[in-house]
Amino acid sequence: MKYTHLLLKTAKESPTDEDAKNAELLIRGGFVQKEMAGVYSYLPLGLKVLRKIEAIIREEMNAVGANELLMPALSAKENWEKTGRWEMMHDILYRMEMSGGRECALHPTHEETVTPLVQQFCASPKDFPKCVYQIQTKFRNEPRAKSGLLRGREFQMKDAYSFHTNQEDFEKYYGVMTEAYHRIYKRLGLGELTKFVAASGGEFSDFSHEFQTISPIGEDEIFWDEAGKQWLNKEITPALAPPVKYSDAEELPMEDVEGKGLIGVEPLAEFLKIPVAKTTKTILFETDTGDILAAALRGNYDVDERKLKKIVGAKSLKLASAEKIKELTGAELGYAGVLNLPESVRVIWDDSCQGRRNFEMGANKTDFHTININFGRDLSEPEEFYDIKVPQPGDINPKTKKAYPVEKAIEVANIFPLGEKYSRAFKFSQEGKPIIMGCYGIGISRLMGTLVEIFHDENGIIWPENVAPAQVYLAPIGRDPKVFSVADKLYDELQSAGIEVLYDDRQDKKTGPGQKFADHELLGLPFRVVLSEKLLAQKEVEVVDRKTGKTTIMPQKKLVSFLTQ
Amino acid sequence: MKYTHLLLKTAKESPTDEDAKNAELLIRGGFVQKEMAGVYSYLPLGLKVLRKIEAIIREEMNAVGANELLMPALSAKENWEKTGRWEMMHDILYRMEMSGGRECALHPTHEETVTPLVQQFCASPKDFPKCVYQIQTKFRNEPRAKSGLLRGREFQMKDAYSFHTNQEDFEKYYGVMTEAYHRIYKRLGLGELTKFVAASGGEFSDFSHEFQTISPIGEDEIFWDEAGKQWLNKEITPALAPPVKYSDAEELPMEDVEGKGLIGVEPLAEFLKIPVAKTTKTILFETDTGDILAAALRGNYDVDERKLKKIVGAKSLKLASAEKIKELTGAELGYAGVLNLPESVRVIWDDSCQGRRNFEMGANKTDFHTININFGRDLSEPEEFYDIKVPQPGDINPKTKKAYPVEKAIEVANIFPLGEKYSRAFKFSQEGKPIIMGCYGIGISRLMGTLVEIFHDENGIIWPENVAPAQVYLAPIGRDPKVFSVADKLYDELQSAGIEVLYDDRQDKKTGPGQKFADHELLGLPFRVVLSEKLLAQKEVEVVDRKTGKTTIMPQKKLVSFLTQ
Repeated sequence: MKYTHLLLKTAKESPTDEDAKNAELLIRGGFVQKEMAGVYSYLPLGLKVLRKIEAIIREEMNAVGANELLMPALSAKENWEKTGRWEMMHDILYRMEMSGGRECALHPTHEETVTPLVQQFCASPKDFPKCVYQIQTKFRNEPRAKSGLLRGREFQMKDAYSFHTNQEDFEKYYGVMTEAYHRIYKRLGLGELTKFVAASGGEFSDFSHEFQTISPIGEDEIFWDEAGKQWLNKEITPALAPPVKYSDAEELPMEDVEGKGLIGVEPLAEFLKIPVAKTTKTILFETDTGDILAAALRGNYDVDERKLKKIVGAKSLKLASAEKIKELTGAELGYAGVLNLPESVRVIWDDSCQGRRNFEMGANKTDFHTININFGRDLSEPEEFYDIKVPQPGDINPKTKKAYPVEKAIEVANIFPLGEKYSRAFKFSQEGKPIIMGCYGIGISRLMGTLVEIFHDENGIIWPENVAPAQVYLAPIGRDPKVFSVADKLYDELQSAGIEVLYDDRQDKKTGPGQKFADHELLGLPFRVVLSEKLLAQKEVEVVDRKTGKTTIMPQKKLVSFLTQ
Repeated sequence: MKYTHLLLKTAKESPTDEDAKNAELLIRGGFVQKEMAGVYSYLPLGLKVLRKIEAIIREEMNAVGANELLMPALSAKENWEKTGRWEMMHDILYRMEMSGGRECALHPTHEETVTPLVQQFCASPKDFPKCVYQIQTKFRNEPRAKSGLLRGREFQMKDAYSFHTNQEDFEKYYGVMTEAYHRIYKRLGLGELTKFVAASGGEFSDFSHEFQTISPIGEDEIFWDEAGKQWLNKEITPALAPPVKYSDAEELPMEDVEGKGLIGVEPLAEFLKIPVAKTTKTILFETDTGDILAAALRGNYDVDERKLKKIVGAKSLKLASAEKIKELTGAELGYAGVLNLPESVRVIWDDSCQGRRNFEMGANKTDFHTININFGRDLSEPEEFYDIKVPQPGDINPKTKKAYPVEKAIEVANIFPLGEKYSRAFKFSQEGKPIIMGCYGIGISRLMGTLVEIFHDENGIIWPENVAPAQVYLAPIGRDPKVFSVADKLYDELQSAGIEVLYDDRQDKKTGPGQKFADHELLGLPFRVVLSEKLLAQKEVEVVDRKTGKTTIMPQKKLVSFLTQ
């Protein structure tokens, strides 16, 4: 690749509409261009990186016997209705009408297509197990496209689906696939930072797993369970709130304070001049059987509806409507508390409410908050406290009684048992038993973004060798034609030796050594090879290691063996 | 590849909902699966073929200095409004709404994205010329998806776009690209059948070119111009109608015949008991300046509006409305003729109307047709006859005075000058002059379908070696385990020698030699290597050439050298 032939232009200025380092550096380096929020074009160097990531993933998928295929982006409504997801995934499906009036959507995932497809080809027991995968463009009508390549509306995915006649066989393959994923991250240089994280099975089964790469930009938090020696995601982390830090010597008189339109616990605490830990969040839910629940948590916690659902044994929960709240509490939305609630409302207290003195709650009176509430005096002490919270850093592991080690992380993959959900929907069975399925995703463009988040410094990207768009940045400097003629030869020589080279062949006056070196640092190729009149006189070249910054002067003739060692 | 590991099952029965050989054989052979009309999944063997076609195209694009990139499928409405194509391409654009209300479409072609993209990267004269391409999924809301992979709603394309600062440079590159296309078709085995065909430039420029592969399933007809030594597409073929074959001895009395609701010239001719050549089609048009034209042609011809527009010098034409026709002729739609038309209507006579006796026309009276019209007696002989017809096989080349040689053909590519249309829309210029652009498409999935149309026999596909999913179909037959153990070794040996093998390792009772041989013929791999107990005893193998059917018995140890020769 010659710089002057490439569609490439680096920029010094960062784009103003991007919030993440990966987008900033990839755009400045001419790897990608933003078309819309969450929609990017991959320019020549960016496409090279993407293809190298794909190639690694493809090799590992083939190694575990998965069949590569390519399914379409368009998908008929009928299949989505069979699984009930036409409505369930309403928000994120791009839908459209085809000529002739038939409705279709763009696949954000392919269960609705792959299940009936594989069904066509696997009719007898000897056809199982089978695993298929594709590397393909996915679409997700994401309301909050952000963080560059990390959360897109159109993105590259590898998605694999496995099909088994029994659970044991599925679990064995799930293990095989897990190992393949570990190999992929290792080859990408992300092995150590990428954690295997237990997650809930959602609507499908008892469990699933995520691969999470530790990074400060990550939207997720993962919790290390020292007792179980495993990482847990938020959904399944049992957590106790740390004890409150404030100490009140005595119980104060309870009173109602007017405080209108205070949104959020911080402004409320500030207004009431109390610590946030004294505030209480009370949320009213209606269950599928029509029961009303009040969930009460320390003000800085959110309720995890999955935990709550499990505790009360409800199939589903929804937030009580403003009308229902008015009917039950007599107050507008935003002022609910536990005092004076009808007896029919079951109150579930989170453990974060335990051991507090003089705490606050909504007064069940529009615009009013009650302060200095105390168990025993104003409310009977709850018989039991539960864990209904979304865990936070600082929370206590109930098994070890110590705070969880917590890391921010990027979810770089998700593998999960699909159980019989889709095989039942499409009546895909063997000898009367529905097929057991598994699903194994990797966001390829997200991985590219993750690599940049992990591997960069203040000057630019530092690509791992396995995915770098080229190994060598060949930079002849000065204006001596002889230098460029030697560079031309060296370019051919390196390429003949199987080394990928980006040859910065710019000879215009504006492009001095500073610009060339800065471009190399920004583009992040593993090695820069510098040629100058002075070096040429000694038949030498200078090699700079992008990662370590180490500079080595060596004879030209040793360059190939140095780079291929 | 082992048969039992592949997602593969061949079918004896042809699909009932496909009209083309390519779809029939590709579906029966498990290369593709139909998801909806015009939407296919590529199964493992089909994807291999697709990737091989892509690789050939990629090599040739890289060889002419084009930069590969990857643009998204989603495209913002704003860019389409700038070029006026949001409305103009209304019918074929899949449109949808994004979260947040922004409208977008799926790209059927990428001018609206590539032009502003390249503009970002090419700011100075030295950045030109530049050519970029992508291999990507295209979407077209096609009302008549048909002919298998030949006309799809979602399909694989290579599209390239070149950018130049002057016309001369563009034309030079257009020639370079033309040569690259010829090389691509040659490598795919389609060199001789694929013709370089001159076409109109449409809205963009004076000319464009198509690559058309001769095939009876082709939707297009191409005309060989012996004088210009070039192929022409319908749009630009000047054509004279062949002389009428009927001969009437004398002029008969003109009369009006009642004939209601006769649609099409065939039923009309039958009803009137006259040859079709006596019928006349009269079509009324309104020009952009409000003039009314009557186009008159021999009944079996259609009018080519481009030709007509050029002759009368109109910017645009539209069919006159039923109301307008009533106003001018006094009759309902369907009974227009030239007799008694107001003088303000200009009549353009196609040469196909010349030299006829006792011809028919609409009577300009609802339900009536006039027969036995004659120039000189009933109508003055037109001063001039024109060519306003869509040419048909049998038409005469005005230069040679002989009938054109005509072929049915599949349009496998289209290259055309875009002129300044898009650079003007996006204000992309250099030194005050809009950039000159060219566009170069190839339908990759269509090519795959074309290859099957060309290369098949009654038993199945005959893939050209360059794109075959594997070179060898290894078929051990019988039930002797020793045969399979030798086949296992041979499989490894062939693969080590770099030969791609599909190993039919099926050992079940149902899969006899007949099934294996039939599968090989259907799947169309260049060579079948047969192993049997008898052959094994002689340390021999049987090699069958799929194309010629030639069978060779040879020592096992000579197999690799035979296949790699």
